[in-house]
Amino acid sequence: MATVKELKEIANVLRRDSIKMTTAAGSGHPTSCLSAAEIMATLFFSEMRFDPKNMQNPDNDEFVLSKGHAAPILYSCLYHAGAIKDDLLSLRKLDSRLEGHPMPGSLSAVKVATGSLGQGLSVGVGMALAAKKHGRNFRAYVLLGDSETAEGSVYEAMQLASFYRLNNLTAIVDVNRLGQRGETMLGHNTKVYEERFTAFGFETAVIDGHSVEEILSALEKARNSEKPFAIIAKTFKGKGVSFLENRDNYHGKPVPKEELEKALAEIPENAFPKIEIRKPEKSAVKAKPAAAAKLTKYESGKEVATRKAYGNALAALAMTDETVIAVDAEVSNSTYSEEVKKARPGQFVEAFIGEQNMIGMALGLSVKGFKTFSSTFAAFLSRAHDQIRMAALSGASLTISGSHAGVSIGEDGASQMGLEDIALFRALPESKVFYPSDAVSTEKIVRLASRLSGIKYIRTPRAATPVIYSEKDDFPPGEFKVLKESGKDKVVLAGAGITLFEALKAHEILKGKGIPAAVADLYCVKPFNAEKFSAFVKKHGGKIVVAEDHYAEGGIGEMLSSALQGKGIEIFSLAVREIPHSGKPDELLHKCGIDSEKIAITAKKTLEGKK
Amino acid sequence: MATVKELKEIANVLRRDSIKMTTAAGSGHPTSCLSAAEIMATLFFSEMRFDPKNMQNPDNDEFVLSKGHAAPILYSCLYHAGAIKDDLLSLRKLDSRLEGHPMPGSLSAVKVATGSLGQGLSVGVGMALAAKKHGRNFRAYVLLGDSETAEGSVYEAMQLASFYRLNNLTAIVDVNRLGQRGETMLGHNTKVYEERFTAFGFETAVIDGHSVEEILSALEKARNSEKPFAIIAKTFKGKGVSFLENRDNYHGKPVPKEELEKALAEIPENAFPKIEIRKPEKSAVKAKPAAAAKLTKYESGKEVATRKAYGNALAALAMTDETVIAVDAEVSNSTYSEEVKKARPGQFVEAFIGEQNMIGMALGLSVKGFKTFSSTFAAFLSRAHDQIRMAALSGASLTISGSHAGVSIGEDGASQMGLEDIALFRALPESKVFYPSDAVSTEKIVRLASRLSGIKYIRTPRAATPVIYSEKDDFPPGEFKVLKESGKDKVVLAGAGITLFEALKAHEILKGKGIPAAVADLYCVKPFNAEKFSAFVKKHGGKIVVAEDHYAEGGIGEMLSSALQGKGIEIFSLAVREIPHSGKPDELLHKCGIDSEKIAITAKKTLEGKK
Repeated sequence: MATVKELKEIANVLRRDSIKMTTAAGSGHPTSCLSAAEIMATLFFSEMRFDPKNMQNPDNDEFVLSKGHAAPILYSCLYHAGAIKDDLLSLRKLDSRLEGHPMPGSLSAVKVATGSLGQGLSVGVGMALAAKKHGRNFRAYVLLGDSETAEGSVYEAMQLASFYRLNNLTAIVDVNRLGQRGETMLGHNTKVYEERFTAFGFETAVIDGHSVEEILSALEKARNSEKPFAIIAKTFKGKGVSFLENRDNYHGKPVPKEELEKALAEIPENAFPKIEIRKPEKSAVKAKPAAAAKLTKYESGKEVATRKAYGNALAALAMTDETVIAVDAEVSNSTYSEEVKKARPGQFVEAFIGEQNMIGMALGLSVKGFKTFSSTFAAFLSRAHDQIRMAALSGASLTISGSHAGVSIGEDGASQMGLEDIALFRALPESKVFYPSDAVSTEKIVRLASRLSGIKYIRTPRAATPVIYSEKDDFPPGEFKVLKESGKDKVVLAGAGITLFEALKAHEILKGKGIPAAVADLYCVKPFNAEKFSAFVKKHGGKIVVAEDHYAEGGIGEMLSSALQGKGIEIFSLAVREIPHSGKPDELLHKCGIDSEKIAITAKKTLEGKK
Repeated sequence: MATVKELKEIANVLRRDSIKMTTAAGSGHPTSCLSAAEIMATLFFSEMRFDPKNMQNPDNDEFVLSKGHAAPILYSCLYHAGAIKDDLLSLRKLDSRLEGHPMPGSLSAVKVATGSLGQGLSVGVGMALAAKKHGRNFRAYVLLGDSETAEGSVYEAMQLASFYRLNNLTAIVDVNRLGQRGETMLGHNTKVYEERFTAFGFETAVIDGHSVEEILSALEKARNSEKPFAIIAKTFKGKGVSFLENRDNYHGKPVPKEELEKALAEIPENAFPKIEIRKPEKSAVKAKPAAAAKLTKYESGKEVATRKAYGNALAALAMTDETVIAVDAEVSNSTYSEEVKKARPGQFVEAFIGEQNMIGMALGLSVKGFKTFSSTFAAFLSRAHDQIRMAALSGASLTISGSHAGVSIGEDGASQMGLEDIALFRALPESKVFYPSDAVSTEKIVRLASRLSGIKYIRTPRAATPVIYSEKDDFPPGEFKVLKESGKDKVVLAGAGITLFEALKAHEILKGKGIPAAVADLYCVKPFNAEKFSAFVKKHGGKIVVAEDHYAEGGIGEMLSSALQGKGIEIFSLAVREIPHSGKPDELLHKCGIDSEKIAITAKKTLEGKK
């Protein structure tokens, strides 16, 4: 632990580094680093307990740089702490691990990608919750910019932090007054910041963010608080360099090369003091190894909603694996994640109606070793898409399930119908998108998801569907299932989820007309084994009629068109192409042209050469 | 205006209607209506000034049912006010205008679709702002559920309401304690609700939400407040029916047919009193008709960022059309919407870093007659996707621009790169997606967007690109531009935005190798004239190499694969297929395989029959 004098010296080094790094890069945000120099120095070299030689130590205190654009000062801290040895001046270069905003895929010493503002506190909530759930004593520290407190997600995180009494969470707001294009809404009005945190259940301290003494004292208060704690630190953007300090129009601008010496001349140059970083508090936690979960028995032909099967499967997993956690946005009796709550209440986290924080929190739990399964209505996952995007960029592994997908939910109407979720989840790097049709495949896919890396999405409709698979069936990623085939098939009917059953009905209709058709279950929309499917289709007539309870754009039909391009296969895609209405599920499938009748008619026309 | 006694009688009618309607429908949320009966009675039949015979009267007070699941009580109010004549018992039926959640496309008496929670206050902010901007005296009233105040977007709306001193905005929170699956975080703790609203700059009143007298008195205070006003109304879910009131497990459940009489027996049956609704205050506002905007002069070949052209075009429009409003999420110096602020400060709204509220507010402004253009980085629009989705379901007309799209932004790295925006905006019903490549086409498209209906998306990269079009060029929706063609072309190179210039460079590379190639600018990704493009491609070799600075999924390549399916055209799609890194723009285009070199190589291989 460092003395006050040493911490001030460290702040000087961090400031000089941040300026030099961004000038070398020719871009970046030095002034946003300068306002946080004393805060970062004190956090990393006095307050936080971590093992710089092993940043993956599960007992390490965790730090989240919510204001991700201040990455240079974080890299400088990691470097001087001995956690990384990278050339700081390689910042923002293609072959450098030090990206413009922190990216765990490049630099594993940072746990989550930041740079989309207002998300870090949710991650901190997840990490602090992970400590409580694990029984570990680490703390989570989150540094926020003042501008980003305009993001509503910050308040979603605050309310959960206080609801779950996360006294191991410390938020520090770097109130440097200036945003990108001018003053923030609140400027230096630290009183209002304090009122807001207080109203959301935090204990607070308002301090001079450039006073190491005040920072130390506030951090001590935070450590002894019964509540989550917020340090409202009044700072100056560009602090330490007269021609940058507290000035407008200096956001995201490096000091020009020709002014570098002038800037550095204003910051005392001193050696980095020899500091011993506080060691993490070793906990006696021993993880119980996961055992094999019991498979639920489903009777063939019985109607079971896949969302119910999702809940059952997750509860079974949770009972044999302590690291499985269900998170839900106040609809657990609809998504059936309540099954986990019933079976293992400690492995269920109620996120209330705050989808953004639900995902950010799940990300925090995930990077601290939990297998998280987050659920809400598919439609409402669109609320958290930026958080999902950042989780994908973090390279994190988490499972997300969207229930009540498609027009087949019926009477509630368009606002509740997830019709873009496949498109949204497909357009994430390295994501996996599953759309099981029955209880058995859902269970198998839930278990599979718990082992796969990346963002795994599981789509479930509202309706109950008959059990068509048996325990022996497997559902590997990228594959499909063949439900009907013969040597004489003229066309392949493809569906997933609710439309698979429409395809099966269409198969019967066509059979009645003397047209043999194969039926395929596309339970995995991404990844997709195009070669194998293409060979299958060619064997069965070379034509596909695919129906999906989803908008056409970015959906299954487009995926097929793209994956099978150039393979000489004709694809006829039935999808939702209008704003849907309230009505009965069957009426809506019919009205939107994705029911068995439409599939059969399309197949027939296709074979007659009409379109 | 009604007496207290009459308002109580009205509340009885509304309660009975809500119960009967949902029982007839066999689904819906009667208990969520019952808690709001006195509030709705007082608002519609005493407080609000509107013309039930003309719900589009611009001077009408506006009401937003943020808790959209209470739709039945809203329909009942509209019916008894004389604004609609629908059979209330047709609720939730396919041929009824009374959908499960309010939908303006079915029922124009409601202005926006609600049902995704936590969005109504933003719409109210937009409406209240519209009154101020128009110089009209109407007020905006928003009824929120208590559960939905967990959504961060609500606080984004609050902070803006107080920042812009919207004393014509009244929020009423129906604190009925119970959410879908149990108690809310705050239960009946109205004090904390009050503290939160106060911390965000509202004046407040905490009342008994079943006391007409207290509601009247609070509404009067609200009308006389200098600030936006929040009425925290303590209520009971299911109020008025003993076996529903304040009980868990009664969310979203109609009274079973066999219990209907028992429920109704508890609510006094009285005739709907004869009430004269308060008339809207006619304002003297006269809209100045829009004049033709001046076209900016762009020199051919000069490098101009399309985002700069966006700002210029918007400023020019704003100067001749008072109804044009730019809204920006604190990056107006990056998106260049600051040009509007400079030219017409009254037609620029700073939304600060709260993208969700930015879109909700823009929706509110739009339905009150403004042509809104909302802008931020393309990546950060993913933050507001649920709001954008609901704007699309509202059938509203608004333009949204995402800047800094693609890996070509360079050093800032993945978190700042919009790479999924085309997929997200395509997957909205009736959306239009534009991706102009130069300043002239951007300007033309901005002007076009101001006249088109629906959600119009304009994508702009960060880099400056040379001006390639002239004033004479037009850019109708659905079409494409041909930049290079000859009678001997063997392949079509297609691009948009940044990749169009890579395609042009590839054209030169290929020319050097003796391979003539056509080049097409796909400035409009949706809608798309597949027939016309198909004919063009067939004339020029029948093969396309398309490059896009976007993920493959849901992007331009997939759109083409789907649109051109079955037309005998081969498509080779180059897109971003990894988590991108920081680096120089050119390095990144190369690394991600979307640069001129890769286009040329792909085209060559294609012609050689290799893949």
